Amino acid sequence: MTSVCCFQLKVNPTSSISKPQTHLRFNPSTFALPSSSYSKSGEPQPLYSSVKSFAPATVANLGPGFDFLGCAVDGIGDYVNLRIDPEVHPGEVSISHISGAGSKLSKNPLWNCAGIAAIAVMKMLKVRSVGLSLSLEKGLPLGSGLGSSAASAAAAAVAVNELFGGPLSTSELVIAGLESEAKVSGYHADNVAPSILGGFVLIRSYDPLELMQLKFPHDKNLFFVLVNPEFEAPTKKMRAALPPEITMSHHVWNSSQAGALVASVLQGDLNGLGKALSSDKIVEPRRAPLIPGMGAVKKAAIEAGAFGCTISGAGPTAVAVTDNEERGREIGERMVEAFMKEGNLKALAMVKQLDRVGARLVSSVPR
Amino acid sequence: MTSVCCFQLKVNPTSSISKPQTHLRFNPSTFALPSSSYSKSGEPQPLYSSVKSFAPATVANLGPGFDFLGCAVDGIGDYVNLRIDPEVHPGEVSISHISGAGSKLSKNPLWNCAGIAAIAVMKMLKVRSVGLSLSLEKGLPLGSGLGSSAASAAAAAVAVNELFGGPLSTSELVIAGLESEAKVSGYHADNVAPSILGGFVLIRSYDPLELMQLKFPHDKNLFFVLVNPEFEAPTKKMRAALPPEITMSHHVWNSSQAGALVASVLQGDLNGLGKALSSDKIVEPRRAPLIPGMGAVKKAAIEAGAFGCTISGAGPTAVAVTDNEERGREIGERMVEAFMKEGNLKALAMVKQLDRVGARLVSSVPR
Repeated sequence: MTSVCCFQLKVNPTSSISKPQTHLRFNPSTFALPSSSYSKSGEPQPLYSSVKSFAPATVANLGPGFDFLGCAVDGIGDYVNLRIDPEVHPGEVSISHISGAGSKLSKNPLWNCAGIAAIAVMKMLKVRSVGLSLSLEKGLPLGSGLGSSAASAAAAAVAVNELFGGPLSTSELVIAGLESEAKVSGYHADNVAPSILGGFVLIRSYDPLELMQLKFPHDKNLFFVLVNPEFEAPTKKMRAALPPEITMSHHVWNSSQAGALVASVLQGDLNGLGKALSSDKIVEPRRAPLIPGMGAVKKAAIEAGAFGCTISGAGPTAVAVTDNEERGREIGERMVEAFMKEGNLKALAMVKQLDRVGARLVSSVPR
Repeated sequence: MTSVCCFQLKVNPTSSISKPQTHLRFNPSTFALPSSSYSKSGEPQPLYSSVKSFAPATVANLGPGFDFLGCAVDGIGDYVNLRIDPEVHPGEVSISHISGAGSKLSKNPLWNCAGIAAIAVMKMLKVRSVGLSLSLEKGLPLGSGLGSSAASAAAAAVAVNELFGGPLSTSELVIAGLESEAKVSGYHADNVAPSILGGFVLIRSYDPLELMQLKFPHDKNLFFVLVNPEFEAPTKKMRAALPPEITMSHHVWNSSQAGALVASVLQGDLNGLGKALSSDKIVEPRRAPLIPGMGAVKKAAIEAGAFGCTISGAGPTAVAVTDNEERGREIGERMVEAFMKEGNLKALAMVKQLDRVGARLVSSVPR
C-alpha cells in the first residue's frame, strides 16, 4: 500500500469554476460517471482505502449580503479523515473520533454536521457495499460566526466523494452540505457553498439551488482580519434580533449596497468592497449591540486603515478587510484592544487570505 | 460663422469612464478649468453661440434594481437646442419652443425639467454675463416609464455645460439633473444618471452622490424590447402601490437578485440578466396588476424567447431583453398582441440597443 499526498487538489477540476463567474445549478440529469468506477449494481467503487480532506472557514452575511453571500478564508478550517471500515455496517458511516474545538459534539452521525453530510453523499452515490469510519479535526471554534458546522459538513462531503473518485459535482456536494446545515443551524447555503467552492459565492436561489461564483481578481490581495472575542452569541439569539419587517428605504439602500458589493468583488475594488461591507442598515444595527464592544471594534478597525468591517456570520467574530498582511495585524491589534476596552472581552485576532480553492483532498491512500 | 458637427461626442472624454467600472463622486474641490475659458470674474466664457444636445431614454428600476439601478437606451430620447440670446436677461434662461410629445409642458423654466436643469448648471458655472434661449424636442412620451423628464434634464444640463466648453464633470451634471428630477418626479437619480453617463449606472448613495458605472462588455449585444401601451400610469399612483414594509425573506430574495443582476451586467451574461430582471418579488407584483395585461405581456415575452421582462420605470411600458434584433421584433409583436388581448390596450413596440455613450453634444456653432 502506497501513501499518496495530493495537497490542495481541487475537487472536480474539470468543472466550469475557472470562468470569471459561474452559475452552478443542481441538475441530476447531467450526473454521469466513467463506467469503470461503477459496480454492476450501479454503485461507484471506492478508489481509496482512506482519504483526508480540508474545508475552510467562511464569512457569511457580509453586511448587505445577509443570507445570500459568503466567502471562504484560507488556512483555517476543519479536517476529516475517512476510511473504509469493515467493522461498520455497509452503507453506513460511523464517527470514530472528534478532536480540537469540537470535542463536545455528538458522535452520532445523525446529529453531527460531518456525519449528516457524509450520509447525504453516500445516499447520492447509492453506496451499499462498504461502511465508512470518519474522524473529525475541528480547527474552528463552535458558534464563532466562521461557519464551523459548514466546514465540518463540507470536509465530510468532499471526503466521501473523493473516496469514490469524485463523481459528484461541487453543486451536488453543496446540496449534501445544505442537508447538514438545515438540521444543525438552518437552511442556508451561504457558509457551506463558499466552504466547498472557495472564493465568494452568491446564493441565487434554493429551489432549484443556484449558485454564482464571484471571482475576485487573482492579481489583487484580499486579507480578512478576524477577531474572535470570548463571548457566546448563539445563532438563534442573533437571528431573533432581526427585524420581521423592513422599510422600503432601508431595503433599497441595502440592495444597492449589495449590488455595489458584488461589483466591487468582481472588479477587485477593495475600497468599494470595504465600504459596502460596512454599510448594512438592517441586520448589523440590530446585532452589533448584542456583542459587547462591537461598535467600538468596527470604529477601531476603520481608524486603523481597514477598508471596512462588519460582523462575521451571526457573530461574535468581527471581520475587517485590508490588502496588506502587516497592516492587517495592526488592525487586528486595535480591534482586540477595543473589544477589551469597550466590551471587557478578551479576543484573538487572525489575518487570513481569501481562500480561492474551497474544500479539497489533502491526502489519500489507494486501495 | 462655421457650423461644426460633432456627432456622438462624449462629454468629458477625459473622465475615468473608460474603466470597466467607475465610481463617480461629486467633489467640488476637484473642480478645475483651464484658465483660458474664464473671465476675470471667474465666470467661464461661452465657446459656442449655439449647441444641440441629445439625451437618451432610460429604463429604471430594472426589477430587483428598484430605485437604484437604471440603464440608457440608444436611438430614442430628447434634444435640446441652446443659444446665446441677447434678448434674454444675462444669467437667465428662457424656453422658446417645445415640440414633439411634450407640447403640453410648461415653458416657465422654473417648472420645466429642461429649464430647471439648465438653471442649475448655469448656477454651478456662475454664468452672469449671457442669457440663454432653449428649445426642447421631446422624442419621448410623458409618463411612459422611459425617463422622459430625466432625458430633458440631461439634454439641457449637457447643452449648457458644452456651450461653455464642458467644464463640469458628468457627476456634477447628474447633480444638476437630480435637482430637476426632485422638483418634477421625485429625488431619484436612476433615470438621469444613466441618461447622462450611458450604460448601466448603480446609484450607491445620495449624500454624497456616488455612482457606479457597470460596464456591459462591448463584445456582447443587448437589445431592449420596449412596448408602450396607450395607458396612463402616473408615477405617483404607481409609487403609492408600493408596500410600506417588506418581509425579511422578500428583502433577502430581492437583494440576492440585485447582486445577481449586477454580476450578470458586468459579465455580459444575458441569461442571468434576464432572469434577475424578471425576479422582483416586491415592486412588480404590486404594480403589474395596475397595468392591464402586464402579466400576460411578460409571459408572452418569455415564451417568445426573451431572457427576461419587467415594467420599465413606473410603467406602463414593458421592457424585455434579448441579444438579437430580429428576435426582439418578434418578441415585441407577441407583447403587443398580449396587451391587446389581455389588457384591451393598443401598444407600440420598439427594439433598441443599450446606449453606451449617454447624453452628448450633437452639433455646435462656434462664436
